[in-house]
Amino acid sequence: MFSFGIRNSIPKSAIFRRLVACPCFLPNRTITMAAVSRKYKVVNTPTVYFGTFIHSYCDDPSKLDVCEEGAIGVNSDGVIEFVERHAKDAATVIEKHPEFKTAEFFQAKPGGTQFFFPGFIDTHIHAPQYPNAGVFGSSTLLDWLTKYTFPREASLSSLSVARTIYSRCVARTLSHGTTTAAYYATIHVPATNLLADICSAAGQRAFVGRVCMDHKDINPDYYRDESADESITNTCLCIDHIKKIDPNYELVSPIITPRFAPSCTTEALEKLGKLVKETGLPCQTHISENRNEIQLVKKLFPEYDSYAEVYDAFGLLTPKMILGHAIHLSKKEMDLIKSRDAKVSHCPVSNSALTSGGAKVRWLMNGGVTVGLGTDVSGGYSPSILEAVRATTLVSRHVALSDGDECKLSVEESLYLATRGGAKVVNLENKIGGFEVGMEWDAQLIGLELVETTGGEPTEEEVVDKVVFEGPKSAGPVDVFGWESWDDKVAKWVYNGDDRNTLAVWVQGRKVWSRE
Amino acid sequence: MFSFGIRNSIPKSAIFRRLVACPCFLPNRTITMAAVSRKYKVVNTPTVYFGTFIHSYCDDPSKLDVCEEGAIGVNSDGVIEFVERHAKDAATVIEKHPEFKTAEFFQAKPGGTQFFFPGFIDTHIHAPQYPNAGVFGSSTLLDWLTKYTFPREASLSSLSVARTIYSRCVARTLSHGTTTAAYYATIHVPATNLLADICSAAGQRAFVGRVCMDHKDINPDYYRDESADESITNTCLCIDHIKKIDPNYELVSPIITPRFAPSCTTEALEKLGKLVKETGLPCQTHISENRNEIQLVKKLFPEYDSYAEVYDAFGLLTPKMILGHAIHLSKKEMDLIKSRDAKVSHCPVSNSALTSGGAKVRWLMNGGVTVGLGTDVSGGYSPSILEAVRATTLVSRHVALSDGDECKLSVEESLYLATRGGAKVVNLENKIGGFEVGMEWDAQLIGLELVETTGGEPTEEEVVDKVVFEGPKSAGPVDVFGWESWDDKVAKWVYNGDDRNTLAVWVQGRKVWSRE
Repeated sequence: MFSFGIRNSIPKSAIFRRLVACPCFLPNRTITMAAVSRKYKVVNTPTVYFGTFIHSYCDDPSKLDVCEEGAIGVNSDGVIEFVERHAKDAATVIEKHPEFKTAEFFQAKPGGTQFFFPGFIDTHIHAPQYPNAGVFGSSTLLDWLTKYTFPREASLSSLSVARTIYSRCVARTLSHGTTTAAYYATIHVPATNLLADICSAAGQRAFVGRVCMDHKDINPDYYRDESADESITNTCLCIDHIKKIDPNYELVSPIITPRFAPSCTTEALEKLGKLVKETGLPCQTHISENRNEIQLVKKLFPEYDSYAEVYDAFGLLTPKMILGHAIHLSKKEMDLIKSRDAKVSHCPVSNSALTSGGAKVRWLMNGGVTVGLGTDVSGGYSPSILEAVRATTLVSRHVALSDGDECKLSVEESLYLATRGGAKVVNLENKIGGFEVGMEWDAQLIGLELVETTGGEPTEEEVVDKVVFEGPKSAGPVDVFGWESWDDKVAKWVYNGDDRNTLAVWVQGRKVWSRE
Repeated sequence: MFSFGIRNSIPKSAIFRRLVACPCFLPNRTITMAAVSRKYKVVNTPTVYFGTFIHSYCDDPSKLDVCEEGAIGVNSDGVIEFVERHAKDAATVIEKHPEFKTAEFFQAKPGGTQFFFPGFIDTHIHAPQYPNAGVFGSSTLLDWLTKYTFPREASLSSLSVARTIYSRCVARTLSHGTTTAAYYATIHVPATNLLADICSAAGQRAFVGRVCMDHKDINPDYYRDESADESITNTCLCIDHIKKIDPNYELVSPIITPRFAPSCTTEALEKLGKLVKETGLPCQTHISENRNEIQLVKKLFPEYDSYAEVYDAFGLLTPKMILGHAIHLSKKEMDLIKSRDAKVSHCPVSNSALTSGGAKVRWLMNGGVTVGLGTDVSGGYSPSILEAVRATTLVSRHVALSDGDECKLSVEESLYLATRGGAKVVNLENKIGGFEVGMEWDAQLIGLELVETTGGEPTEEEVVDKVVFEGPKSAGPVDVFGWESWDDKVAKWVYNGDDRNTLAVWVQGRKVWSRE
């Protein structure tokens, strides 16, 4: 299906402190890890990637930068050392970069059907809800939480259940090209630690958040923190665990996670705000997803003018805050969010599924708010950011029906949100989201199907007497006929593509997924 | 991946008059047909299907009828002869139906991950536009026609181009479980005949329409009929061809196809109306898709009160008319359509993509209008009716945001539209869309993935020292964990499924697709 080039890019001599095999998740194969990397450190064989590279410009969401016949050199730390835009000849590239003389080569298949693209960044996903994907009926946010979500999350008190769910979720998201994910876990410390372990073992860049929810009137008795102190103590236990396995948070980082304002007491919000300040850690929560939820916030926090002000009052509205949804914000709230440089995770699949509303993404972007994309599994039914990209363009068209044509988001803009935008949301825009010198090699190789033509012009007799009928030649869902520009091919990928088109995935230079 | 049961269901002795092989379109295999069935006639080996059968009730769109451990007997004409709802024991079934003593058996895999479902009915698809799927930029209907669509359709003046596109399109739609399609072709007679030939060879039930468009001011010079007479003459040539290959229209039928009111002169509309009356053939066109289009109709046909009245005036609004889109209809138009028993094809993927609007499907259904689903490739980017089902639920939720909760369509209702509804739209509700005695076996076998759990509860030590990481075990996108009801599993299929879940497809009892 695709060429792995001259040498395999998996380093034979990769060194992981305390052992980790490179998890190449092949279909029909189980990988058992005898021990999890407790101190994360990867050393890769330097690799030069040859082929077509496509990414968003860092300062212009409206266009894609296409580099055909390029070469990118990635060093043993997984950092891009050079980008050559004209690299027909590998020898010349190596001559120019002699430090890559002993590097491995990875050549994408020539012929215009394969390209490298930055890994996707999922800025909002609930890993424990993964088994519920697609099961939401006609519910909306608040009844959905009670009926489907709390019971599911509560089941992760069992580590066996957590292991099954989290390993599947991480494997699936990787297979969809998600190289970075901001995960909500559950209230359970062991299960949350396990999710961090699994991300570390799988090589997925992750923010792992132990969910805080101590409000007795809002959360069910069977699934909540006993007190604000328990919220804090258990959050700290998870932070400690991640510090042990990845002391510099190079791959996996804790993220402080008040579920959403109504689920927390003011005491918990206050203490979590302090924890954010003390630790400098990122934070994530929900905002303005559903009109009934907004009413609930008004009722529970009558002293504040708006939902955004609640978070701000407790010191939670910082540049490291990821706010999920942000559908029904007032102008004043948007301005507040902008002034604090808090970030927004747009979750269009979820917003359509739960009838939450159409977020005004163009309005947020024009207002200077940083936006990325989230799958919001399982409010969102799909673990694929490519599906979120598709939904971003479609939901924006529904918004445009009432708010005007300028609300439409293009394929290019939506892909920007999935990569550069997401990188900004998780404050890693200098490391991931694009292919520039000094950034890390978080990438996916995309492959499309070339439809073969079946011979020349048939004669009139052949039309009726000899029809050549040809079925799809491979499992990939995107057909390319040969006339398409790169922009057309990218659009075809966005609208008809799926995980079958994601042939390989790398994080920090390490290959973490391959379909071969 | 799935069991084919005791014997393979492809009849070894299948007799096709002038037809050679059963086109089992396997990935990575090309099937060449030396001759096309000119007189369509299939004789199958009688087969008994065992397993779980799920279909919509014919009179209640809100629920699915699930028959676990059922058996369905299909005779040599592809007609269902018996349905047994409790068939644990094959011997008892055969004892009760001795005429199936020598039948083949087809057993779906037990264990709750496979089920038979009626084949999908695509009531609106433009086969020549298939290569454009996903390529529409930010266009809306009228500029989309000019920029993307007319140039693509014009290229099918080449039979070689038509052969490549049509064979791929039919293979793809079959792989998505589309057992019946109402195709728009182009203005070209040879290419349109070729599409009919390909459907006949592939075994897909199809309505094939040669497109009529003779208006000099609306259609481009390079792609239109020279006159109303040419519209009629060339339509008749295509009817004659299909009559030759399938005299009783058992599998492939002609369908009279004025593109849409603006593209035709009043002379052409008048003559096409007469042709509909004389031949009794079905008819298809577009209505009320886009607000600018509606204005254009008003301008071109000032003497009529509405878009629907234009068609009615020319005798085109009959029970055999399929109206694509019907988004912005007035109440009066809906009542007219209802009174004529004309049918509506809802195309939600296209309507979102081209920013056409959200069709008020609940309103149409409550008004007594018969509705089915269409992919509308390539206004719609996907050839999959499953995607259209998904989009039906989502678009209905966007409509609900403004028009109220009762507008939401459930998974069950959307699947009804894709099967029973579609069958009514093409006036074949007594033959297809469900599993009842006397109906034909147009079906698909659906398979989901069972996620295996990885052992029992780990000890605290194992949590940190022994993580079992497991990748997806197969290529299928839908994960089942074991706790799901059939309704849950169907919802998971609708929201995360794709052609990988469609393991096999039958039309009139003949297996026309298999993923094995």
